[in-house]
Amino acid sequence: MTQAYTYPLLIGQLLRSALQTSAQQRITYADQIDLTYADLEKRVKRLGSVLSGLGLGKDAVVAVMDWDSNRYLECFFSVPMVGATLHTVNVRLSPEQILYTINHAEDDAILVHEDFVPVLLPLLPRITRKVHLILLTDRADAVVPTGFSGEYEALLAAADPDFAFSEFDENTRATLFYTTGTTGDPKGVCYSHRQLVLHTMGQLVALGPIPGNGGVHRNDVYMPITPLFHVHGWGFPYAATLLGLHQVYPGRYEPTRLLALIEKHGVTFSHCVPTILAMLLQAPESASVDLSRWKVIIGGAALPEGLARAAMARGIDVHAAYGMSETCPFLTLADMVASQATADTALIRTATGKPIPMVQLRIVDPEMRDVAKDGISSGEVVARAPWLTQGYLKNTSGTKDLWGGGWLHTGDVGVMTPDGTLRITDRLKDVIKSGGEWISSLALENIVSTVNGVLEVAAVGVPDPRWGERPVLVLALGAVDVKDAKAEVSAAVDAAIGGGALSKWAAPNRIYIVKALPKTSVGKIDKKLIRSMIEDGSLSE
Amino acid sequence: MTQAYTYPLLIGQLLRSALQTSAQQRITYADQIDLTYADLEKRVKRLGSVLSGLGLGKDAVVAVMDWDSNRYLECFFSVPMVGATLHTVNVRLSPEQILYTINHAEDDAILVHEDFVPVLLPLLPRITRKVHLILLTDRADAVVPTGFSGEYEALLAAADPDFAFSEFDENTRATLFYTTGTTGDPKGVCYSHRQLVLHTMGQLVALGPIPGNGGVHRNDVYMPITPLFHVHGWGFPYAATLLGLHQVYPGRYEPTRLLALIEKHGVTFSHCVPTILAMLLQAPESASVDLSRWKVIIGGAALPEGLARAAMARGIDVHAAYGMSETCPFLTLADMVASQATADTALIRTATGKPIPMVQLRIVDPEMRDVAKDGISSGEVVARAPWLTQGYLKNTSGTKDLWGGGWLHTGDVGVMTPDGTLRITDRLKDVIKSGGEWISSLALENIVSTVNGVLEVAAVGVPDPRWGERPVLVLALGAVDVKDAKAEVSAAVDAAIGGGALSKWAAPNRIYIVKALPKTSVGKIDKKLIRSMIEDGSLSE
Repeated sequence: MTQAYTYPLLIGQLLRSALQTSAQQRITYADQIDLTYADLEKRVKRLGSVLSGLGLGKDAVVAVMDWDSNRYLECFFSVPMVGATLHTVNVRLSPEQILYTINHAEDDAILVHEDFVPVLLPLLPRITRKVHLILLTDRADAVVPTGFSGEYEALLAAADPDFAFSEFDENTRATLFYTTGTTGDPKGVCYSHRQLVLHTMGQLVALGPIPGNGGVHRNDVYMPITPLFHVHGWGFPYAATLLGLHQVYPGRYEPTRLLALIEKHGVTFSHCVPTILAMLLQAPESASVDLSRWKVIIGGAALPEGLARAAMARGIDVHAAYGMSETCPFLTLADMVASQATADTALIRTATGKPIPMVQLRIVDPEMRDVAKDGISSGEVVARAPWLTQGYLKNTSGTKDLWGGGWLHTGDVGVMTPDGTLRITDRLKDVIKSGGEWISSLALENIVSTVNGVLEVAAVGVPDPRWGERPVLVLALGAVDVKDAKAEVSAAVDAAIGGGALSKWAAPNRIYIVKALPKTSVGKIDKKLIRSMIEDGSLSE
Repeated sequence: MTQAYTYPLLIGQLLRSALQTSAQQRITYADQIDLTYADLEKRVKRLGSVLSGLGLGKDAVVAVMDWDSNRYLECFFSVPMVGATLHTVNVRLSPEQILYTINHAEDDAILVHEDFVPVLLPLLPRITRKVHLILLTDRADAVVPTGFSGEYEALLAAADPDFAFSEFDENTRATLFYTTGTTGDPKGVCYSHRQLVLHTMGQLVALGPIPGNGGVHRNDVYMPITPLFHVHGWGFPYAATLLGLHQVYPGRYEPTRLLALIEKHGVTFSHCVPTILAMLLQAPESASVDLSRWKVIIGGAALPEGLARAAMARGIDVHAAYGMSETCPFLTLADMVASQATADTALIRTATGKPIPMVQLRIVDPEMRDVAKDGISSGEVVARAPWLTQGYLKNTSGTKDLWGGGWLHTGDVGVMTPDGTLRITDRLKDVIKSGGEWISSLALENIVSTVNGVLEVAAVGVPDPRWGERPVLVLALGAVDVKDAKAEVSAAVDAAIGGGALSKWAAPNRIYIVKALPKTSVGKIDKKLIRSMIEDGSLSE
């Protein structure tokens, strides 16, 4: 009988591959645990036995609520490897939202760190399915709450160490998590084994072949500072495992601990959002830690030039990346080749970057026609890659909007230069469409924000019978004369139009003054509310 | 309608991906042609029009007989992208073998360089299918032979530049070539689009994350010195394209030209068999060319330590790799991380190396049980990877042997250390199986070859009723006393056994003396013939 092996792209293969050459490499959890990859495999097998013993296999959904730990990494492998779906619960959501995601995901089990037990316990009566509960704790004397199946380490110690994972279709669902917008319920985003393996490989094809010390290399020491529940820690734990890197999981993010771990283990590669990097640089302990071998990928929000320069002054090799929950997440990386060869690299490092290998990006108008790649013409960024989510869980209309025309719609507006460098200029819902032009609300706000006395500014589009929309500014001012300030704002916008930084359509029709701009619950300027306030006449010029 | 794009892994995606960021990068053909990647895409589209116009699309087989050229690279993309199979004809085979492969592959078209027209023309009457013929030439005044569809450049110039490639199943066959053993007809080996894309990514995940200047990085200049008909130039043209490297195709391999191209274009990355590297180092022009930035991967045969040292003395960063026609080809690479960190790196560089990411290797006994990873226990090397051929074309029994037990059988015998380093010790058909032990014929020959007066040596196993097989030596001697030489050989083997370099089973039962060892048509020692000569008593002690 012919028995050629048709190698499915399964998450288990990433671990199996690493074990062949890196069995003695280390995985560190804060100051608690130091494992080898060989230990990791044993624990992944024991966890497989535990899950299997609870009847959690194919079609089951297993949720995790934890800080970044080796246990979480074990779940990254073992849960999908038994054929179940790993639901990485966003522990920063409100209890009601957490409950919503647990019920929407149809979780069959929850592995919960004791820090989150007080959040979870009151929700239990309202969880619609029977759930198995497993306690995660760093303490030997932790009490397992009533109704729990047990404590993770005790369960592992008692489990069969020889669990044999079977193989299955690579399109089997592996992970599930929820993304929250400003409105509506959280939306479930899923990835298959195949997508995660290809994302891992694509990420390394992008980050490996960087000349010099940039990117990711086999001598790096890796520590995530993006929570593992955020798009699988941006996929890096899988990539670090495949490469056999020393991995350091920091537990709860506290600046003092993070800096101490960087120093103690010689961490050379991390990733985080801009605010975390700023927090670390501002921490008092930071000054005495050598950060000159540290490479950091920034995502989740644009990398501000000031922060990039502050990091570079500390010797940090910092670069922006771009993606979103729906894109697994990697779509683009700042040009790490160019940033090694240029004198002032801040602008290269902060750019949205170039599409990584296997990613196709287009900038399109509302009819899905390509706009010119001239660095000026803007449109919505749409994408194709082997690792984009195929839709929102149980949300047909959301999926339809996401994939209109067969391309994933990022909801971001950007421009692209002929060399493929993308610059995001706005969110699609905030861009002002006037006279056939797309005006970046961000660009307009940036210019107005430089005017003396302007504390806050929002640029929004209001309906206009002739031009579609027209820009309107809403300002909060300091102790300045309102009339003078308005005149200065108009002059600054006119100057930007004259200099070509803004299109002639960007001159605002009206300027409203408010005490403070309305904000959303997470502190972002609430443009939706501003637009409705303008519409119902509750703002004054 | 929901229209999520399920991204198939197609060869066209490699080119499309590169075009986004490297449209102005160069592709050079000897001293003839300098193209940009944007030009390459245009030419690939025009070739698509030409092929399509000849009715060559899905299910067609298009053969190429060419030196390494940009035109060959265009075929690497365009032929599979129209859905056809690219048959890369081994132009070094005998005319009869070439005819066999053309008929066995069922070629529908042959693109043939004028240098090979004299080989092909006499074969045409015996080609069983109707074939379209296209002439490849570097000369503007070349005469197109009767019966040809035309000359490549002229056909491209006249073709529709806007050919739209469609998409199809990633498991569609993309390439086909033939591998020859010492006996039997050439065997057809096929790869799908999916396999080639995954091999490309796997290769870069292996070679990208090497620290320092090793491996492959985005600032490399690439030139193949393994013919493109040998396992797709070991896959590197696809990898170089995906990374957007400057690529240099040298045409026919002539030492002077190769060295001149390395110097002119600052080539930093190549791959070749050991004999080609030796030839380049020995060429008179070599002394004046700076090779200190050149990285070379050696495959196809073991990298001799002496050659490695000679290359290192010239500043060349040389490493062995291992694979075969049936494995696309990459399975292992010498440990490039270790070779950067150690003083004397020759042994690391010449080792068969460690499995690259996504490759699973086992060393097994005849019952497919794993032997110990102790660096001593030997067995057959068997493999799994996402890019292994699924079988030989129209050869069920060969396929069955290749994939016995669900693992690809390399036919090589090796040992593995706990850190995953493989060392090939013999071909399975040459290993001597005695008393339950596997004795490496190569190891035994190496030791005997050091004895004074021994010109040639072959160690072969002969049937033994008690021990299964017993080793026998066949020697060709110089001007030495036969009896003394035999005694010295026995003493050398005994010393090696005493020192642990050989097992106690390795002491030969008999030593035959011949004038010269019999060779195969390609100059290898013909052990099959030697065994039959021993069996029929035609050798004397």
